[in-house]
Amino acid sequence: MANPQENLDLVNNETNKIFLKVGKIQESGFKSEDVKRKTAVLLLGAGRVCYPAVDLLASSGNSCCQFWKTFLEQYAEDWNDIEVIVASLYLKDAKEITEDIANATAVELDITDSEKLFMYISQVEVVISLLPPSCHLTVANACIELRKHLVTASYINDAMTLLDEKARNAGITILGEMGLDPGIDHMLAMKMINESHLQNRIVKSFMSYCGGIPSPESANNPLAYKFSWNPAGAIRAGSNPATYKYEGKTVKVEGKDLYDSAVRLRLPDLPAFALECIPNRNSLIYGDVYGIGHEASTIFRGTLRYEGFSEVMGTLARIGFLDAEVHSFLRNGRPLFRDFLLELLKIKGVSSGSTIGEKAISESLISSGLCKVQETAVKVAKTIVFLGLHEPTEIPSSCQSAFDVTCYRMEERLTYSKNEQDMVLLHHEIQVATPDDQQTECRKATLLEFGTTMNGKSTSAMALTVGIPAAIGALLLLTNKIKTRGVLRPIESEVYIPALDLLQAYGFKLTEKVES
Amino acid sequence: MANPQENLDLVNNETNKIFLKVGKIQESGFKSEDVKRKTAVLLLGAGRVCYPAVDLLASSGNSCCQFWKTFLEQYAEDWNDIEVIVASLYLKDAKEITEDIANATAVELDITDSEKLFMYISQVEVVISLLPPSCHLTVANACIELRKHLVTASYINDAMTLLDEKARNAGITILGEMGLDPGIDHMLAMKMINESHLQNRIVKSFMSYCGGIPSPESANNPLAYKFSWNPAGAIRAGSNPATYKYEGKTVKVEGKDLYDSAVRLRLPDLPAFALECIPNRNSLIYGDVYGIGHEASTIFRGTLRYEGFSEVMGTLARIGFLDAEVHSFLRNGRPLFRDFLLELLKIKGVSSGSTIGEKAISESLISSGLCKVQETAVKVAKTIVFLGLHEPTEIPSSCQSAFDVTCYRMEERLTYSKNEQDMVLLHHEIQVATPDDQQTECRKATLLEFGTTMNGKSTSAMALTVGIPAAIGALLLLTNKIKTRGVLRPIESEVYIPALDLLQAYGFKLTEKVES
Repeated sequence: MANPQENLDLVNNETNKIFLKVGKIQESGFKSEDVKRKTAVLLLGAGRVCYPAVDLLASSGNSCCQFWKTFLEQYAEDWNDIEVIVASLYLKDAKEITEDIANATAVELDITDSEKLFMYISQVEVVISLLPPSCHLTVANACIELRKHLVTASYINDAMTLLDEKARNAGITILGEMGLDPGIDHMLAMKMINESHLQNRIVKSFMSYCGGIPSPESANNPLAYKFSWNPAGAIRAGSNPATYKYEGKTVKVEGKDLYDSAVRLRLPDLPAFALECIPNRNSLIYGDVYGIGHEASTIFRGTLRYEGFSEVMGTLARIGFLDAEVHSFLRNGRPLFRDFLLELLKIKGVSSGSTIGEKAISESLISSGLCKVQETAVKVAKTIVFLGLHEPTEIPSSCQSAFDVTCYRMEERLTYSKNEQDMVLLHHEIQVATPDDQQTECRKATLLEFGTTMNGKSTSAMALTVGIPAAIGALLLLTNKIKTRGVLRPIESEVYIPALDLLQAYGFKLTEKVES
Repeated sequence: MANPQENLDLVNNETNKIFLKVGKIQESGFKSEDVKRKTAVLLLGAGRVCYPAVDLLASSGNSCCQFWKTFLEQYAEDWNDIEVIVASLYLKDAKEITEDIANATAVELDITDSEKLFMYISQVEVVISLLPPSCHLTVANACIELRKHLVTASYINDAMTLLDEKARNAGITILGEMGLDPGIDHMLAMKMINESHLQNRIVKSFMSYCGGIPSPESANNPLAYKFSWNPAGAIRAGSNPATYKYEGKTVKVEGKDLYDSAVRLRLPDLPAFALECIPNRNSLIYGDVYGIGHEASTIFRGTLRYEGFSEVMGTLARIGFLDAEVHSFLRNGRPLFRDFLLELLKIKGVSSGSTIGEKAISESLISSGLCKVQETAVKVAKTIVFLGLHEPTEIPSSCQSAFDVTCYRMEERLTYSKNEQDMVLLHHEIQVATPDDQQTECRKATLLEFGTTMNGKSTSAMALTVGIPAAIGALLLLTNKIKTRGVLRPIESEVYIPALDLLQAYGFKLTEKVES
């Protein structure tokens, strides 16, 4: 018989109920000597990123897998198995994550209920917050008060930075930006940059590309793109202004020109991917973050898409399909997609019964000057037809703006079907030189991951590459391999060296290369 | 206890030994009522294509799988399980195929031993020959004599065509070109063409592209290509002359100009693949085969590669790396790859100890005029370095020509590693019009398959897409769904309609599309 008291050692006496799982232990036929003391991790948020993190943590110590073999040999002298508590606003969501995982428990938690939040945090040693960024501050303050480490995959904002001293005084680490981007991008960049500096090399140029896009065979539509999240956020990001430095000159791109600034990109080591890249917000701050601002004359970070995406999106924007203001045409009755398209294209005199097809759309795009190149007009027309923005069916009343209409159709038609995978591609390239500029070298680092099916559940590459680093962050804090206290990013070797090692052990395809 | 006599019904009395598998039947614990009469298929050749065909045939009747469900419902009124005999020149090769397959037996067979060949053929109802094309005639003559159907995945040559009457008189079908290319290409083409003709449409243009190339993530080298077979044949195909018809004009490309005639290709439905296409031999004959020679002003068949392949290969050819004559430089002692490169590039005065790198190679390519574009020179130099054609190591004495040297290195360095897959992409596009030319349409058909792991064995997309159609051909002959006798291609609806249906049931990703 299992002795439930074994687990209670870890637990605040007031709130021991989640560990009183006698029934579960009996069911799985454990004998009492099998029940070991467990370490507890609280995972906040049961979204897409949660599952791979829980699955990894709860499989703790499984010596059949390379990850745990590496972890136990290299990073854990003394190790207890992990009990994961998954907390979500809706118990159902948390239960969906934990249902097939032996060492995971689902609980309902509204983080604004601070009593309950404190109760759960007090039961664990590390908290991972995968909640929306706006929630992190509440969690961080609770972690400081209860002296528990916190890991997030979100950007560390100013408010979080201000908690540094408090966190240090509490003896805890708030490890932020521990996902993909931000996350693995920092790790791979800082490894290359620090190694170059240690070898007395000057970093002359830093170019970085990252994208979550469909796997090539899943990019089976004219936009070569699909959404696994709500499209609105991704589309809005298409009008963010960008700044970068290229060969000493600072380049600013206005939001409205972002798509037009996309450039074709071929990675010489992965030449089969027809890629393009769009500048990604303010690259210059990475000069400071990575300590190369004074030496690098090129600092560029770009978002990856497949070739053609930006010219189509840019044209849709010019047509007015991305305008977010309430559109008068959509407020009168229940207009048809077809009629709204004719309105935006300013095509008059089409009888109400007739259909409008790819050819008519592309001709209109050329004659109106919205497209200058025939090939682009055809691509845009194909996209409009693929999305059904030409169909004689009613626009739902929830759509108030052209942007709403576009998002509605994209959410409906640009989704992954059951056997389709997404892909994450991250590629850094730095040019380094000796101080006398006589010897130069190009150093590259690449991560290429595809979505996969784990235990019958589809897991996107995006969820894997965000969730696994966060879980690894928690493990490194549990084993005290990360000793720095306060607010931290994975730009420190204390974090990125073991983290990259463990990401590789997990099976991530990370490659590094030096070319002279 | 199993009664071995049950199986003997099928078997020539002289040669019943291969069915006397009492031990095997005992092992698998069959009761006597389970032992059903089995239909036997002989598969000749135990190369790469063999495994998927045997695996499919020997799993006969497995109702858990969609393929057999479809087959039993649609194409087989009365069905016996299949016993597959895999015959190979080396017993070991055949055994490797059959070891984990319950209903398959390995035998040793040299087809020039006609007594033994006749013995095995006489034991079965259908023969599949996956032997080299030069062997098919021997097998076909034996099949005619013994009145057994034959399936091959090879081109039907003139000698085979001449057997048509004999085969008809013997009441058998020789179904050739039942693989991928030739095979699935015929099926998809004829389905579109016949449907168009039935709808009174004229086929104005036929464009077809096919390639066996690495999956995008496996194309991780500067050539964006890998070999799963011996490279010599594939490289030699790069100097085949080509003929095609484009907008009414016949275009001839000489072998030496083939790589230079490659053009960039983007498939609008699969825009993520950075492809190019090289004209594939004589496309005009397909005008006759498909019955569109008189109506189509464009008939083009191309080989698919990733963009950049041809410019690199074309440059390697210009350097002399594909010259097949014995090279005097290679006959004196044991020259180094590095020195042979210097010889071909006519670079003089490099001291024997020094190394030559990417930069020096690309500079030499530009200064000698072998490359006009810097980007190409860099790609070629990267390829040379990747292949190790610049290394200061000895060229094996087996290499007599530059072609041998190149093949040696390509075979060594352009191979698939354990977790890498190949890919087969076949895409047809036809333009059809009404007789008055007023209405036009584009009809497309696409097959996209990736290599996979079946029962722990890696199976290439190429093996799957050749082996499965051949197996399906045998099944359709066994069930008498193909009634035409004589020498046949899968251009007949009697073959391609059920075959395409079964390919889809097997899981092949075939898509068809009409765009107006």
